[in-house]
Amino acid sequence: MFKLFYSPRTCALASHISLEEAGADYTLARVDFSSDEQRSREYLAINPKGRVPALVTDDGTLTETPAILAYIAQTFPQAKLAPHDDPFALAQIQEFNSYLCSTVHVAHAHRMRGTRWVDDPAAIEAMKRKAPESVAAAFALIENVMLKGPWVMGARYTICDPYLFTLAEWLDADGVDLAKLPRVIDHRTRMYERRAVKQAIAQERG
Amino acid sequence: MFKLFYSPRTCALASHISLEEAGADYTLARVDFSSDEQRSREYLAINPKGRVPALVTDDGTLTETPAILAYIAQTFPQAKLAPHDDPFALAQIQEFNSYLCSTVHVAHAHRMRGTRWVDDPAAIEAMKRKAPESVAAAFALIENVMLKGPWVMGARYTICDPYLFTLAEWLDADGVDLAKLPRVIDHRTRMYERRAVKQAIAQERG
Repeated sequence: MFKLFYSPRTCALASHISLEEAGADYTLARVDFSSDEQRSREYLAINPKGRVPALVTDDGTLTETPAILAYIAQTFPQAKLAPHDDPFALAQIQEFNSYLCSTVHVAHAHRMRGTRWVDDPAAIEAMKRKAPESVAAAFALIENVMLKGPWVMGARYTICDPYLFTLAEWLDADGVDLAKLPRVIDHRTRMYERRAVKQAIAQERG
Repeated sequence: MFKLFYSPRTCALASHISLEEAGADYTLARVDFSSDEQRSREYLAINPKGRVPALVTDDGTLTETPAILAYIAQTFPQAKLAPHDDPFALAQIQEFNSYLCSTVHVAHAHRMRGTRWVDDPAAIEAMKRKAPESVAAAFALIENVMLKGPWVMGARYTICDPYLFTLAEWLDADGVDLAKLPRVIDHRTRMYERRAVKQAIAQERG
């Protein structure tokens, strides 16, 4: 039995979808960002980073999306969400998900969470102005080089797909020109059709 | 046989140390950042991201430090650099390394590579001013919560250790008060004593 701490419209959705894809037995706990619950003493005892997602397991709590996704894939091998017997193929999955967390999500965060890196209000505005460009550049590499198609890693659906989908949902609000990302948008459209994605979104936003 | 593309004083050192720890057969290729070689047509054909590290293997090229480290650990199981048979313990390693790439390295990069996220020169200066604080905050969590000791994951040396060491080498230049990080600095000191670390540093800076 797992418990996923999440907030709607955050990267926690990738872990949520993956729990659904794996057929895991889990419950959800919503963290209310509007009241800053992620910085409450209670929540910091669960995740000292004050962020979501956090996945509580029988062995302890895990954070960081690439780690949670890899854990779900390895714990539910019958779901075939990652090729654990093939070091290179598995590393390609980790490579893609590392890029999402360290480059793509970070570029987006400069529009939303600039105070992590500057105090000056004018600098925060300067960050917001550049976010459409830096997010677009990060996604251009996915569009033109990294996304093999039809799924991120080719014929086989993996833990890269819900993570890409989750960040691609933010493209519109980030002010990125979707017309330049037809393959990413086609992937996003096909993801909306999956049972696990529909179920996770309904639970979070329904 | 592997080929590691690196530049001195970058996060590529973590992969370099791990190749040494694993006893891998590898060659080094230095990418000259001073002449912007990382953005040359030749290097972009190897790594379209224009960054280091890039590890060329018989199966293809890998980028992103957490992925390269996990690949080395899985490819050289006799080196016991990660517990691949224990999903939770392995996920804890991925969690730590994800935090280093997405939070710690990113905080540091705001001192060094601000143009990734803003164009305004004043905003770049504002980023540089806050970097000591944000890097210190990221390392405080490692110091107080994440670093189990003596190694990152406890009794066993893993692929978390060379990565933490590599980023901890930047603390002085980042202007962080080392006195507040005694456990991180003790870890760094013990890392300098390892054969693999001495060898990798000698090759890169010798």
